[in-house]
Amino acid sequence: MGPYLRDLAQFVAIPSVSAQPRHAPDVRAAAHWLTARLRGAGLTATTVRTGGHPVVLATWHGAPQAPTVLIYGHYDVQPPGPARRWSTPPFTPVRRGDRLHARGASDDKGQLLCHVAALRALLRRHGRLPVNVTCLFEGEEEIASPSLPALLDRYAPHLAADVLLVSDTAMPAPGRPAIVRSLRGSATLDLRVTGPATNLHSGTYGGAVHNPAQALCTLIAGLHDPSGRVRVPGFYAGVRPLTATTRDDSLRRRAGVPALWGLPDATPHDRTTIWPALSVHGLRAGYTGPGTSSIIPHAALARLGIRVAPGQNPAAIARAVTRHLRAETPETVRTTITTTSTAAPILVPTTTPGLATAAAACREVFGTPPVFTRSGGTIPALGMLREVLGLDPVLLGFALPGDNPHGPDESVHLPTCRLGVATIAAFLRHLGHAAPLRGQALAASGHPPRLLIGERAP
Amino acid sequence: MGPYLRDLAQFVAIPSVSAQPRHAPDVRAAAHWLTARLRGAGLTATTVRTGGHPVVLATWHGAPQAPTVLIYGHYDVQPPGPARRWSTPPFTPVRRGDRLHARGASDDKGQLLCHVAALRALLRRHGRLPVNVTCLFEGEEEIASPSLPALLDRYAPHLAADVLLVSDTAMPAPGRPAIVRSLRGSATLDLRVTGPATNLHSGTYGGAVHNPAQALCTLIAGLHDPSGRVRVPGFYAGVRPLTATTRDDSLRRRAGVPALWGLPDATPHDRTTIWPALSVHGLRAGYTGPGTSSIIPHAALARLGIRVAPGQNPAAIARAVTRHLRAETPETVRTTITTTSTAAPILVPTTTPGLATAAAACREVFGTPPVFTRSGGTIPALGMLREVLGLDPVLLGFALPGDNPHGPDESVHLPTCRLGVATIAAFLRHLGHAAPLRGQALAASGHPPRLLIGERAP
Repeated sequence: MGPYLRDLAQFVAIPSVSAQPRHAPDVRAAAHWLTARLRGAGLTATTVRTGGHPVVLATWHGAPQAPTVLIYGHYDVQPPGPARRWSTPPFTPVRRGDRLHARGASDDKGQLLCHVAALRALLRRHGRLPVNVTCLFEGEEEIASPSLPALLDRYAPHLAADVLLVSDTAMPAPGRPAIVRSLRGSATLDLRVTGPATNLHSGTYGGAVHNPAQALCTLIAGLHDPSGRVRVPGFYAGVRPLTATTRDDSLRRRAGVPALWGLPDATPHDRTTIWPALSVHGLRAGYTGPGTSSIIPHAALARLGIRVAPGQNPAAIARAVTRHLRAETPETVRTTITTTSTAAPILVPTTTPGLATAAAACREVFGTPPVFTRSGGTIPALGMLREVLGLDPVLLGFALPGDNPHGPDESVHLPTCRLGVATIAAFLRHLGHAAPLRGQALAASGHPPRLLIGERAP
Repeated sequence: MGPYLRDLAQFVAIPSVSAQPRHAPDVRAAAHWLTARLRGAGLTATTVRTGGHPVVLATWHGAPQAPTVLIYGHYDVQPPGPARRWSTPPFTPVRRGDRLHARGASDDKGQLLCHVAALRALLRRHGRLPVNVTCLFEGEEEIASPSLPALLDRYAPHLAADVLLVSDTAMPAPGRPAIVRSLRGSATLDLRVTGPATNLHSGTYGGAVHNPAQALCTLIAGLHDPSGRVRVPGFYAGVRPLTATTRDDSLRRRAGVPALWGLPDATPHDRTTIWPALSVHGLRAGYTGPGTSSIIPHAALARLGIRVAPGQNPAAIARAVTRHLRAETPETVRTTITTTSTAAPILVPTTTPGLATAAAACREVFGTPPVFTRSGGTIPALGMLREVLGLDPVLLGFALPGDNPHGPDESVHLPTCRLGVATIAAFLRHLGHAAPLRGQALAASGHPPRLLIGERAP
């Protein structure tokens, strides 16, 4: 773990929060740090400017007969949220037992560095890689990759590959490797309700003016029926009738909630993976500082996030929600609804190149075959990579349920990272021996072609 | 306006925001400034420490045969809210035409200084006052006067008076003096909804965990029925069957809303004065900074403010709302509801000492008798002063509907302030000639004893 841990501690100390403009220099610094590390590992690497945060591109193309692997990852991180919710500062890496704690330790810096470490180890030991490798590490994953389409247009010829490998997903438990077969897409919306021209005195106007914060609450409350089903017409359009699962991964315990909640007649695991969901990411209105300010706020804001199920069209779902909110807006206030991002859901075909090789690498390193899982998360770049490069991803991730990405006290399990480095190295090695790759079916490797069972392959 | 305007410009430049601990030194500074001004006017004045912000007490008791007037006012102000909502900085007084703009210009520094100016003018001209005067100017009106009960207990013998005079209310229009006959009370509550142990990744958990921000919205939405009536059992208990009015004071235009809203079968003016109302003063949950943070927030907060109608018990209404919110809380989240303040409503009896004198002073200075009005606002000290000193207030205020107290760009109309100074001086002069005061009925002065008609007295 020596160099890996040293690298990770340096990497997570850079507060590369892509969402916050004041952190733009930190995002750039993280890109330059990563470019330097890739060069140190023996690749040709460069920091590429975009309209937003930079992309790091790195290549080692010294095996003309071997297939080419495109490795995607991201070096930006979520905002840390309130400092007081963290046991130790979010950008001060702290090791506690088997874990390193910091924002981004799991999502995705720790996993991204598994690739860098594997590439470095292979190049040190053999002076070459068993396959050609292109790395595409972006700095805008957490803000839905707005600059990636333009970059892909520009660099598509340089990014052509046989296999797309991504480590930005989780395993169900330590020692249980997993390959993710589906991801949800997403759409984010800002809902702004405005009423009076300015904040009003709640004594003078209270009772005769519709409070925008209250009207916002009514609109948000009206998005779900009491059973937990979304009331928006068309919200469930296109959902794929995938096999139901009973797995729950102790969701209730891990979330720390008194009881689970959600769509009736669906298991908790299905609710978070093959059904869409609508979340409130944030609310802001009026005065919530110390003491009281007795006002009717002139405006109220909600940040809404929709997770779109495999088979659904995120833009269409965002339009359906927008239409519904507009229709429900009373004449006493005004609403402005803005779609701030969309990202496609992913269903990984059983014939995806590299899928069987990844399963074999897991078996070799973990001593057990991978489970094929569904994830409720979103990787916005994947839809774009499929569209531009025609590649479906091999989602071989090493996060764990306890990592708490996006929340406070995010951490990564270092022994699992060590196995991750070894698994990636094994994957690249196996891939160097296997040919031809294209069209190789998962079924041919002894894994069943059943989609998304969410259970261990026999 | 010379010394008055100079004083006001100095006074409003002190950001005496009682709600915000970081402004505590400014609140103290405003108290000391005011004490010095009262001494300069010729009164004996002192800054009295309390458990919270100081109280300024001042006396001139040189007329043993004359009645004693207790003047109440407050030198603290509301938080200014976002600076970008202000045309000029909130604590930089700016004169535009007939108005001085700054937080507190109208509520209540501008009105409080009318008293100081009137006292100074009388003492300069005559070397004495026509009556005995005690001033009680507090620094916690905007946070519901938490330190006032203890101060009143301690100083009650020094505060005994025949008349209680307060200028912290509005006139319907320039040139139309008003005496307020009723004020609403208030109760403020914090509603906190908690769910997961920490912020969660909305991809991993979205759909199976009840979002606290969404649950908060549902609870708040459920406080009103679609018609605008509060659904809380007992919310309308005790409301006095006062005469309905049709006055609307162009409420819709002044508020700048597309349409008015509220309790069916009540006029807008009645909704804001003789009926209780429930407002959301603020909302806070999750992430609302730049970009996106795709989380299920672990908690959500709403600040609720209830304006309690004349005849109602604010503590009982707060308990009713708390009970209702607890009963409506689903098992998937937890709620914590805290009553942060209560203040009694006020109905001024027609027999209140000084009421007829105030009407006469208005007629003398404005050339027209006052209208007797209802206000929807709250002055928490008044319930306490009635309880401890047995005094009902003469509510002779000089604010105007366009002043926008509590909102941005608060301002005060300087020509009305000048008339305010003259009216207060006339009131004190008239009071010095009238005796006995106690029991003097408004009816005896030619004004009808009808309560709360909200129309010009014949």
